[in-house]
Amino acid sequence: MNIVPHWMRGYQRHWLSGDLVAGVIVTVMLIPQSLAYALLAGLPPEMGLYASILPIMAYALLGSSMTLAVGPVAVASLMTASALQPLAAPGSADYVALAMLLALLSGGMLLLFGVLRLGFLAHFLSHPVISGFISGSAILIAVGQVKHLLGVKAGGAHVLETLLQLAQAVPDTNGVTLGIGAGSVLFLLVARTYLAPWLVRAGVNAKLADLASKLAPMLAVLVSTALVAALRWDETARVSIVGAVPQGLPVLAFPSIVLSAVGPLWLPALLISLVGFVESVSVAQSLALKRQQRIQPNRELLGLGAANVASALSGGFPVTGGFARSVVNFSAGANTPLAGVVSAVLMGVVIAALTGVFHYLPHAVLAATIVVAVVSLIDVQTLREAWRYDKADALSLLATAGGVIAWGVEVGILMGVGLSLGTLVWRSSHPHIAVVGRVPGTEHFRNIVRHSVATEPGLIAVRVDESLYFANSEVLQDTIESLIAAQSGTRHVLLVCSAINQIDATALGMLTDLERSLTQRGIKLLLAEVKGPVLDRLQTTALGQQLQGRVFLSTHQAFVFAHQHAALAVPTP
Amino acid sequence: MNIVPHWMRGYQRHWLSGDLVAGVIVTVMLIPQSLAYALLAGLPPEMGLYASILPIMAYALLGSSMTLAVGPVAVASLMTASALQPLAAPGSADYVALAMLLALLSGGMLLLFGVLRLGFLAHFLSHPVISGFISGSAILIAVGQVKHLLGVKAGGAHVLETLLQLAQAVPDTNGVTLGIGAGSVLFLLVARTYLAPWLVRAGVNAKLADLASKLAPMLAVLVSTALVAALRWDETARVSIVGAVPQGLPVLAFPSIVLSAVGPLWLPALLISLVGFVESVSVAQSLALKRQQRIQPNRELLGLGAANVASALSGGFPVTGGFARSVVNFSAGANTPLAGVVSAVLMGVVIAALTGVFHYLPHAVLAATIVVAVVSLIDVQTLREAWRYDKADALSLLATAGGVIAWGVEVGILMGVGLSLGTLVWRSSHPHIAVVGRVPGTEHFRNIVRHSVATEPGLIAVRVDESLYFANSEVLQDTIESLIAAQSGTRHVLLVCSAINQIDATALGMLTDLERSLTQRGIKLLLAEVKGPVLDRLQTTALGQQLQGRVFLSTHQAFVFAHQHAALAVPTP
Repeated sequence: MNIVPHWMRGYQRHWLSGDLVAGVIVTVMLIPQSLAYALLAGLPPEMGLYASILPIMAYALLGSSMTLAVGPVAVASLMTASALQPLAAPGSADYVALAMLLALLSGGMLLLFGVLRLGFLAHFLSHPVISGFISGSAILIAVGQVKHLLGVKAGGAHVLETLLQLAQAVPDTNGVTLGIGAGSVLFLLVARTYLAPWLVRAGVNAKLADLASKLAPMLAVLVSTALVAALRWDETARVSIVGAVPQGLPVLAFPSIVLSAVGPLWLPALLISLVGFVESVSVAQSLALKRQQRIQPNRELLGLGAANVASALSGGFPVTGGFARSVVNFSAGANTPLAGVVSAVLMGVVIAALTGVFHYLPHAVLAATIVVAVVSLIDVQTLREAWRYDKADALSLLATAGGVIAWGVEVGILMGVGLSLGTLVWRSSHPHIAVVGRVPGTEHFRNIVRHSVATEPGLIAVRVDESLYFANSEVLQDTIESLIAAQSGTRHVLLVCSAINQIDATALGMLTDLERSLTQRGIKLLLAEVKGPVLDRLQTTALGQQLQGRVFLSTHQAFVFAHQHAALAVPTP
Repeated sequence: MNIVPHWMRGYQRHWLSGDLVAGVIVTVMLIPQSLAYALLAGLPPEMGLYASILPIMAYALLGSSMTLAVGPVAVASLMTASALQPLAAPGSADYVALAMLLALLSGGMLLLFGVLRLGFLAHFLSHPVISGFISGSAILIAVGQVKHLLGVKAGGAHVLETLLQLAQAVPDTNGVTLGIGAGSVLFLLVARTYLAPWLVRAGVNAKLADLASKLAPMLAVLVSTALVAALRWDETARVSIVGAVPQGLPVLAFPSIVLSAVGPLWLPALLISLVGFVESVSVAQSLALKRQQRIQPNRELLGLGAANVASALSGGFPVTGGFARSVVNFSAGANTPLAGVVSAVLMGVVIAALTGVFHYLPHAVLAATIVVAVVSLIDVQTLREAWRYDKADALSLLATAGGVIAWGVEVGILMGVGLSLGTLVWRSSHPHIAVVGRVPGTEHFRNIVRHSVATEPGLIAVRVDESLYFANSEVLQDTIESLIAAQSGTRHVLLVCSAINQIDATALGMLTDLERSLTQRGIKLLLAEVKGPVLDRLQTTALGQQLQGRVFLSTHQAFVFAHQHAALAVPTP
């Protein structure tokens, strides 16, 4: 891999305007989001800004997507808060240090997975689990922001406690804060739904109108900040504001590694890495395909890993590719990660010179930004489709969402992964097993239950439609034993292996035991249609030695063998 | 289910002598084992005896095996010790109460699994994981007994610490204890290897000789107890002895349920249940097959569950079916669980009247019994076979054994299950995908890499040899996109579904996205050889609607369609 990325070496001049425009527009979205997601993660606002500079540059060097917008995102911020809250008080120096350590661990894991080409780890997360996780997290995030909208103090160990505390705190609601918060939510929702159509009717180009509607959060930030500053609502109405945000570019420093904190942080770091990776790749992939480009998952691991390490070194917290900003980046015409570099430079200017602007920014408007952003993440459509198509998948989705809401993000996602793996094992542990017979006059063999076929006396021919492994080998054994018990005079048992792609050691052991036990009862085990690679490995085993002369190319040949053998054994009268 | 078990209603007189003889022989094995396994579990000796009375009766009522010998076993005793040691001091009243609670939880879980017919949960444990678990546990148990053989105090939090402490304690070795211990180990090993052949040469019937060799532990117990009692080695040589064992039948009482203890105990209880169930069923199954009998796994769950509840109610600890005693029970001629009832009654007599015999029983001889019993559980053969046949299975085995030894039984088994599930997902996430073409002049289609076949210009025909689900759907998508990228002018992509038994929601989503993205690029997705049940479910989905007219019964028909379509589109010159 060359140190200068591919897009930079072949950069074409006509890409520049798209990259510049997209960079500016994404920056305008990124400023309120980075402040809001730092709030959500329980961190000081400047950390959101820090996490939006170097990480983008790092991703631009190593990532493979042309349009993914990297930085703080809602779900990773929630996961950060949930990982750190048991370890330190939100906002404290320890908490800040742990957030950087978490980003470092997460980045290190992603880089390691990238170097080891372990992108397949993300396959453990099925779509229903991811969807349930995002929806559950969105509900958790939205509930957590209500206190900022009401201007009260509340927050329990879990969602029910939080709701109870909120209910009790309602009488203390700060009217002006609620006005700003509810007003912002309303404005943002209206802007999202009606602004673009309205601009189009007013004669604005459809794409431009759509982009303009994405700038509503920045407008809400500017107007509310101006209002609070002008009327001094922070003093007259006790509206909670962001306050002084330190000015100046982030200072590079290695986060202090507290070894005792690595223990409780490795699992959250792993989950943040995997969830972030899956989400980033899926949005990057869908955008790339629209332009006939390709994403390289292992390059994405390196890009996201470098972004997180950069975040850790420059005072930030875990970052990943954001869905909304990436889509805007794409629509605004970004051609290469230069758009991201433009954003990063602009963010650098903001933090070097303009943080004073955010002094009077009310927390309520940030909370409104978060709530409106995450509510759109609640995904009922996937649940509805999964319910119609596959109840087990729908249940994994609901269990993951319910687990996240009831017991938090880590328990929720582990439950989901457990359930989807459980479903996988349960399904393949109940393979379709058919007893087959000959379609008369042909060499075709079909299920005796569904077709009118001829069987051979003394022969039980069984076809199993699944690879044999630890979770289903006993089921096959039980089925064969039941068939033998139900049918006296069995001389041969034929296993038709056309659907068997693998036989693991457990299943091999079962077959070996079965063959031995059948032989003791005077029954011969026959195999037919064994796939080449399966047969190659079988032949080196004791079972393979035992079965010599009893493995047939076709089911037909096995039937002929059984027929002749039966004829030889029964003396003609 | 009738309350009187099947074997009791149809009991035949000629079964009686076999059951009586087997019951007596198993009792002679059971006495030293039950005392030894109580020692291993960190419990007072009488609990081993209690666990050998009512549990056997309960199993006789509900279990389905005719020959399984239920009671204390080595691995479950180790698991009990490892679950309880973090919670209370071994031998204390709390520890004893927690052991009963553990048996109650384990029994309750087994009964619940039986009622819900969840026997398939045991399928999560593959043979290599079980084998690695047993071998690792055996090593852990053997190391833990060395202190009793040396007559020293030692025992660390993990095996390395224990070994270190043992090394330091060697100078304190009690010579007489070591003599008894090492002598017993030697005697037991010699008896196991040479006694039966020697008896045969002396003219004894081979089967009787084999059974007699099983009585060696009892002989060691009697001789060493007599020696210690006669020479008062407990005082003169400070040999550690069992001491006073309370006389009298167990009193039925409900264990005190400490709710705070259920939290740390549920996982150990679950693992004890599953491991015990898997081991019991596998030994019961192999014995039953020798007599053409059948085991009903869900009945086994009920039988073992009832045995554990009975153990909890009568002052015992977790029990399960033991391998060695079951084999002896079978060989000694047991025909029905009446043999177990005979054992239970004899054990009742022992505890009601004969516990005084065990006063001078040295701990060293019990430790010798344990060491010799568990060393035979170390299973190098399975490792060797797995290594030859399937490296991934061998690695799960080694990881499980290593995990047990390094981090204890729970971590070890969870690592093993995680690894074997990981292997499963990893394997099916790398399915065999072949591009196929037509065998010239036929309607057969084969892999273009392995056969000389004809392809259709503009058509990519792909066969995937695995069901499609969350772990492999992206791999298929990537493969198809790479094929399209490598071959310009693609007009059709054909997916041959002959090996697809299932499509889950994640894979359905992938196919839907793929179809949409291909359509945008002017490429048509075709399906062929879709299995009936898969097609039925597909037709209700949006993808099914989109694909109407493009799902073909055979690959041949799809090739014909692609050919005609291409001919129509390209104007003839």
